[in-house]
Amino acid sequence: MSIQDRLAAGAATWCAPLTCKPLSEDEAAEIAPLFKALADPVRLRLLSLIASHEGGEVCVCDLTVAFDVTPPTISHHLKVLRQAGLIEGDRRGTWVYYRANPEVLAKLAAVIGPAPAVQAGTA
Amino acid sequence: MSIQDRLAAGAATWCAPLTCKPLSEDEAAEIAPLFKALADPVRLRLLSLIASHEGGEVCVCDLTVAFDVTPPTISHHLKVLRQAGLIEGDRRGTWVYYRANPEVLAKLAAVIGPAPAVQAGTA
Repeated sequence: MSIQDRLAAGAATWCAPLTCKPLSEDEAAEIAPLFKALADPVRLRLLSLIASHEGGEVCVCDLTVAFDVTPPTISHHLKVLRQAGLIEGDRRGTWVYYRANPEVLAKLAAVIGPAPAVQAGTA
Repeated sequence: MSIQDRLAAGAATWCAPLTCKPLSEDEAAEIAPLFKALADPVRLRLLSLIASHEGGEVCVCDLTVAFDVTPPTISHHLKVLRQAGLIEGDRRGTWVYYRANPEVLAKLAAVIGPAPAVQAGTA
């Protein structure tokens, strides 16, 4: 069975807050800004780079060299991620060090729910 | 490694692509439009209402009465969700009937990964 078939089969019984019952206005208002913060490819890659970095944090000096955009653009995207609560930053000397906020990522994951194949594997 | 490959690999380790290793430019470009489509509270609620509806589909006539916005606004948001591939619609007579696209929702869930509690249970 292909991954597509497994996804489709699992999706038939998939139950996550987003797909199991209608989100309330309050829930949608709380979650939408997180999606908005992730609605840009550079921000997605920045968050992924920060979250997956060894040691759990990244110096902004290492982020700016990893992208083909200007440092001010990186700063803008980091600010958006930070304002959404997806990352946190600490200044130490010259540089700011960023780390992902696992609680906010968990909130996002909990609303969308595990991929169907996960659910099937743990049922 | 493609998102599909990561899905397959993830089935064994349950390491979320977003947080386990940096997303590639191609992956980020593929996923960002999905987040953009969900970056609005009304669209989030529309998708949730459609995905959770008994029978798996909803008449647009039932959607317009469920929200405190004008029918043209609902139509606009449905178009955005449809263009992102998150929902599909069929016209039958006077009305269009919408259903969620489980494969696209599964792709989103697979990138974000399971919530930590699920991850811990399957580690």
